[in-house]
Amino acid sequence: MTTDRGIKAACLEVALPSGPSIRLAAQAKGAGMISPKFATMLCFVQTDAAIDAETLDLLAGVTVRRSFERVSVDGQLSTNDSVFVLANGAANVTIEPETPDELAFGEALDALLRQLALEMVADGEGAERVGRVIVRGGVELVEPVARAVADSPLVKTALHGADPNYGRILQAVGQALAGRAPFVVDLSIQGQQVVSASVALDIEDDDFAELEREVAADEVEFELTIPGEGGETEVFFSDFGHGYIEINAEYTT
Amino acid sequence: MTTDRGIKAACLEVALPSGPSIRLAAQAKGAGMISPKFATMLCFVQTDAAIDAETLDLLAGVTVRRSFERVSVDGQLSTNDSVFVLANGAANVTIEPETPDELAFGEALDALLRQLALEMVADGEGAERVGRVIVRGGVELVEPVARAVADSPLVKTALHGADPNYGRILQAVGQALAGRAPFVVDLSIQGQQVVSASVALDIEDDDFAELEREVAADEVEFELTIPGEGGETEVFFSDFGHGYIEINAEYTT
Repeated sequence: MTTDRGIKAACLEVALPSGPSIRLAAQAKGAGMISPKFATMLCFVQTDAAIDAETLDLLAGVTVRRSFERVSVDGQLSTNDSVFVLANGAANVTIEPETPDELAFGEALDALLRQLALEMVADGEGAERVGRVIVRGGVELVEPVARAVADSPLVKTALHGADPNYGRILQAVGQALAGRAPFVVDLSIQGQQVVSASVALDIEDDDFAELEREVAADEVEFELTIPGEGGETEVFFSDFGHGYIEINAEYTT
Repeated sequence: MTTDRGIKAACLEVALPSGPSIRLAAQAKGAGMISPKFATMLCFVQTDAAIDAETLDLLAGVTVRRSFERVSVDGQLSTNDSVFVLANGAANVTIEPETPDELAFGEALDALLRQLALEMVADGEGAERVGRVIVRGGVELVEPVARAVADSPLVKTALHGADPNYGRILQAVGQALAGRAPFVVDLSIQGQQVVSASVALDIEDDDFAELEREVAADEVEFELTIPGEGGETEVFFSDFGHGYIEINAEYTT
């Protein structure tokens, strides 16, 4: 199956602390769990730095967890999502482990992969808008809560309809926390607090009108504070609209 | 919010093994996790039998688990789904616990609630078609596998598009079983086996044409066998189409 989706590619030149510059380039494909028969999400990264395999593997692991593992189009895992990082050494610059150069290289790789991961969500099947949910609270709780919000069809359709529907966010949080923690939650949408200790705040008409404009933006940010401490995570997710239905209901493998 | 959905009501007259007859009636509302502010799924059952509270509570618990707990419109829990069972004794017939009468009463209650639960799915938000997934295998595994299939937006859109897409079923099973069991799965759709030991069978053209007709039915049955023994469950689920998007993206609370 071929799709006609946008090209997701980026490159960076990095001036290393030790002096020389190296280049990083990356390309990715993927817009949903298209079919188990095909490679779904693929990302290829190239650099002209020389870097030993162990260090590169470590950096790839950390940066993949901060990028492609933080996005969701439809919550459906694929069998074969892959990120390949290739270093050919053509720049005649070696990145030594545990040096400022390694840190600078890692930060550049991080920036590159996060950008492609975000582009992947923005280009998700039928996507018109990207949500970003940030969750702070108990270490064990932040991940299931962020996933529950990002994967809720009710939250995703509200994002599609540009509806500042905090009730649906709280419902998803409650579903993830059921039986696990007291339900004490703060919620801000685009920086404006709408829920404090699980109680909806009385929002002035002007502020609500501003909120309605804000949730029609290309990217909408939801910040949640839940019980517990020490945990923080984020998930980027696409909205759920007619385009998703068209793509997924109207083709046969 | 008022909705204009179908009425879900049913009644039964039960001739008890001990001789007299009693009546059971039930009414339900609900079509999705509409809003945490409102009661979402409500079911009221009345009987003119007399039955002690403890026995009725026990029977209600068993039959609710076999009916309303086996359906999914959008996988989203509500805060206040409720089933009320009221016995007024007007028939002057008492159901004694641990008698054939209790068994007959329980079977009638079971039939009534399953019918309403099924009608609820068929009348789900935007629903045009009902899927029934039956999973047999390990006791701990059948429930997460059935839920993963029933709640997958890819399976639900395939059901909407009447696409006999067994790849999406297997993907959902694989996601639920990741790290938990070997991936050895049999799958039949509407009684026709399409996958054996995780391998797609070579289906004759005539059989495939028949399968394509079958998956366009009002109710489509998927039977899965997964590793392990002793467990069996089923979940009824609605499809995911433009109607769901319209209902959920285009209203504001």
